[in-house]
Amino acid sequence: MRRTRFDDASCSIARTTDLLGDWWTPLVLREAFHGITRFDRFQEALGIGRNVLTERLDRLVREKLFEKVPYQKRPLRYEYRLTARGRDFFPVLCAMLVWGDTHLAGKAGPPVELRSRTTHKVLRPVLVDQRTKEPIDSRDVAFYPGPGFPAKELEHAVAVGRFPDDDRTRRRVADSKPKRARR
Amino acid sequence: MRRTRFDDASCSIARTTDLLGDWWTPLVLREAFHGITRFDRFQEALGIGRNVLTERLDRLVREKLFEKVPYQKRPLRYEYRLTARGRDFFPVLCAMLVWGDTHLAGKAGPPVELRSRTTHKVLRPVLVDQRTKEPIDSRDVAFYPGPGFPAKELEHAVAVGRFPDDDRTRRRVADSKPKRARR
Repeated sequence: MRRTRFDDASCSIARTTDLLGDWWTPLVLREAFHGITRFDRFQEALGIGRNVLTERLDRLVREKLFEKVPYQKRPLRYEYRLTARGRDFFPVLCAMLVWGDTHLAGKAGPPVELRSRTTHKVLRPVLVDQRTKEPIDSRDVAFYPGPGFPAKELEHAVAVGRFPDDDRTRRRVADSKPKRARR
Repeated sequence: MRRTRFDDASCSIARTTDLLGDWWTPLVLREAFHGITRFDRFQEALGIGRNVLTERLDRLVREKLFEKVPYQKRPLRYEYRLTARGRDFFPVLCAMLVWGDTHLAGKAGPPVELRSRTTHKVLRPVLVDQRTKEPIDSRDVAFYPGPGFPAKELEHAVAVGRFPDDDRTRRRVADSKPKRARR
């Protein structure tokens, strides 16, 4: 079964979901952040079929979140290491972890704790604005078309309510239209 | 096609991916954070079939991320509003947005900007520890079994490398074993 493709969508969330491919992918990444690098270990940890795992690992290599590095010569064996691009995915997993811990953990508490390797203290990931360090509340933010938003989709996006219909958006829509040449 | 179920897994990431159901769900949530509440608007914004959209909205209502509220009596019409539980999902989408903006946006720049409604400045979401306000680097963290980790899965999890095989983990494993009754 082929999924709908979102990769050309005018949205980084859609592009990211498309790249991940399916729900096994965050779990494969989770194991990588646990420190797992070898095929058999991924398989043991996830209880996943070899074909599915091969496909997901190949995808993550192709998308450059993992690199495939030989760790043994005879016989030749590879391990899968997170790249910088792969490590940058960590906040997505952390945010899922926090949400699940808050809303899906039972009375026993969170199944997993995240601790600093240096201080050994439990970390509580929270999303803040880099500049102000204030937590970001969804009710205090608005989405606006950015510089990379496709010009030809802008009017439709405003019409369906994806962006606020205000001066800032209208300036962006006006700027996106081809200027008429002067005679 | 039935997906593998992760909902009883000993991991909040797995539980969260299970609850979402499929990749349309983050995009439906994205539109909700854009301020969309009505069925037809979701449909226009996402270009999604009515059946698929109905199924995803019902799922989000059932999982209490949305509540279904009448906004018109004759004929009776409902809208879908984010609950507090739904709003708490915002950091997951923000983290995906940041990753996509960083790694998938072309030279034109990010397709969408996140701005504060009060200061109108562009926000740069970053994941920090609540206590220290320091960004969380995946290389400086370790996952440990938490209070909610199922005791019977602990030894296997350590054996396959999901948790560091150190004193802290060993204490947790020892605590999880049933104490022998004294005679």
